[in-house]
Amino acid sequence: MLPLTPQDPDFEARVRASFVRQAFMSTLGARLLRVEPGLCEIELDYRADLTQQHGYLHAAVSTAIADSAGGYAAYSLMPAASSVLSIEFKVNLLEPARGERFVGRGRVLRAGKRMSVCALEVEAWHAGRATVCLSGLQTVMCLANQPDGLTRG
Amino acid sequence: MLPLTPQDPDFEARVRASFVRQAFMSTLGARLLRVEPGLCEIELDYRADLTQQHGYLHAAVSTAIADSAGGYAAYSLMPAASSVLSIEFKVNLLEPARGERFVGRGRVLRAGKRMSVCALEVEAWHAGRATVCLSGLQTVMCLANQPDGLTRG
Amino acid sequence: MLPLTPQDPDFEARVRASFVRQAFMSTLGARLLRVEPGLCEIELDYRADLTQQHGYLHAAVSTAIADSAGGYAAYSLMPAASSVLSIEFKVNLLEPARGERFVGRGRVLRAGKRMSVCALEVEAWHAGRATVCLSGLQTVMCLANQPDGLTRG
Amino acid sequence: MLPLTPQDPDFEARVRASFVRQAFMSTLGARLLRVEPGLCEIELDYRADLTQQHGYLHAAVSTAIADSAGGYAAYSLMPAASSVLSIEFKVNLLEPARGERFVGRGRVLRAGKRMSVCALEVEAWHAGRATVCLSGLQTVMCLANQPDGLTRG
Repeated sequence: MLPLTPQDPDFEARVRASFVRQAFMSTLGARLLRVEPGLCEIELDYRADLTQQHGYLHAAVSTAIADSAGGYAAYSLMPAASSVLSIEFKVNLLEPARGERFVGRGRVLRAGKRMSVCALEVEAWHAGRATVCLSGLQTVMCLANQPDGLTRG
Repeated sequence: MLPLTPQDPDFEARVRASFVRQAFMSTLGARLLRVEPGLCEIELDYRADLTQQHGYLHAAVSTAIADSAGGYAAYSLMPAASSVLSIEFKVNLLEPARGERFVGRGRVLRAGKRMSVCALEVEAWHAGRATVCLSGLQTVMCLANQPDGLTRG
Repeated sequence: MLPLTPQDPDFEARVRASFVRQAFMSTLGARLLRVEPGLCEIELDYRADLTQQHGYLHAAVSTAIADSAGGYAAYSLMPAASSVLSIEFKVNLLEPARGERFVGRGRVLRAGKRMSVCALEVEAWHAGRATVCLSGLQTVMCLANQPDGLTRG
Repeated sequence: MLPLTPQDPDFEARVRASFVRQAFMSTLGARLLRVEPGLCEIELDYRADLTQQHGYLHAAVSTAIADSAGGYAAYSLMPAASSVLSIEFKVNLLEPARGERFVGRGRVLRAGKRMSVCALEVEAWHAGRATVCLSGLQTVMCLANQPDGLTRG
C-alpha cells in the first residue's frame, strides 16, 4: 500500500487534461471541482434530459460522476506515464437523486501499484441542503506506461 | 418467490410507456428492444459524445442501459398500479466497451413482492461480433400502488 | 429516512440476545463488542482453523463478522417485534487479513422502514496496530412483526 | 482475454492441493467436487453450528464456498507457479439458505493475465430439490511466480 502522496507533481494538470478528454462528462454538463491527492469531486446541474421516469436524476448519471470522480481520485496518485481504468463498482442508491445540483466524490481507500480501491458518494443539493443519495465502492486499475492522451482507440 | 408470469397482461405496453418517460434514455439515443416476462433489452449506438478519455463508451453509459433493462425486466412482472426503483447494483467491466452498437440486457433471477434481483449484461457489437463487456447484479424495489406515470416530481 | 434513534429502548438487549442465537458466531469464537444506535462491532481472534491457503484469515471469516455487525447495526434501529435479514453485500478485500485480532464494524448509512444500508469494515490488529483489511456495503431488510427468537425454521 | 484453456496440464491436482491448505474449508466440512477449466464446485452439509439466528445457514458460510469455488475456477486457468487472491465480491442472497446440502459454484466469465472475473452461485438442496440461494460476482487476482504452497505468511 502506497501512501496518499502523488508520485507526479503535476497530477492535477494531468487529471484535468484527462477529464477534458471524457466527452461524456461534457455531454452531461459535468465540471471538475477539487483534485487533491487521492480525492476528486465532479459537479453536475439538474437537467430534465438526464432524468428517469419519475423525474429524478437517472441512477446512471449519478453513477457517472461518482465513477469518474473515483477514477480520477486514484489517477491523481498514479505515475505520469499511466492511464486509469475502472474495472468494477457497486453503488447503493440511498435516496432518489432529487435536487438542483449534484456533487460526486471519490476518495482513495487503498492505493496499490496496479489496483486501487475508492469510496464513492454523490450529494444531492436541494434548497441549500445536501443529502447523500449514492454510496459506492470501486476498483480501478493503473495501466502503466500507457499515457492517457495516447490510448484512445 | 413468484414465478416469471406477468400479473398484468398489459405489461409490455406499461414498460414501453415508462421507457418513453425516461428522458435520459432518449438523450443517449437508447431504444427499447425486447420486453418479455422477466427479460428486457435496450440498444444504443456508439456516439463520440458518450465516450470516456480513451474513446470507448463511458462505463456509466453501458451501466445506464444495463440498469434500465434490469429495472424493466423486473417491472414486467409487477402489478399494473406499481412503479419500480433500483436500489443498488454492481457491475464488472469485463472488457473496454468498444463497438458500433451495444445491447443491455436484464433478466430476473428472483421476483419478489417487494424486492427483485436481476442479472445484467451488456454486449458490445463490433464488426458483426458480440463481446460481453459488462456483467452485473441489481436489486430493484416495487413501489406498490404508485403508478409510474404519476410519481414524477 | 428515519433518524438514527432507536425505536426500541431495549435495542441493546435485543441485539445481544439475537447474537447469542447466531451459532456460527460462536463457532468462529466471535464476541459482540459495542452495540449503539446504528453501530455494531464484533471481534474475533486469529485461529489457524479459520485461514485460507496462505495462512491469512479466510475472506469469508472477515465477511462473516462484517455482515453480522452490519445486520445488528441496522437491527438496533428496528422495532422490537421485528427481525433482520441481509439481502446483499459487497466487500473489497483491501489487504490480506493478517493479525492476531480482527474487529468487524457496521454503521447504518440509511435507516429505512423496510430496507437499510450499512457501511462495513474490518480492522486487522497486528502488533498493536490496526489496518483496514475489508471495506463493504450491505443492504438489509426489516421483517416487521416477526420477532427474532420465533423465526427459526 | 485468454480462452478457457488451462495453461497447466496439472491444474486439477494443483487446485486440489491448494484446497487442502484452506484450513477454513475443513472447519466448515466443505468438500471439493468438480474442478474443470474455469469451473469449480464445493459442497457442504448443513450443520447447526454454521447457522444464523433463524436457523438457516449463515450468509458468510454460503459466501465461503462461493468465494473459494470462484477463486479455484480462476486458479484452474492460471500458470503453475502462481497463486490466487480474491480482491472483491458481491453476493445477492436470493432466498434463505435452507437445506441439507449446499453446492457452491464458480465459473470464469473473463480470464485475464492478472485479473479474472467469476460468476458465483450457491444451490441449497432440500428434499431432493435445488434452489439457487446466492448469486454473486467476484474479481480475483493472479499472483505470478508465487507458488501457492510457499506463500503462507
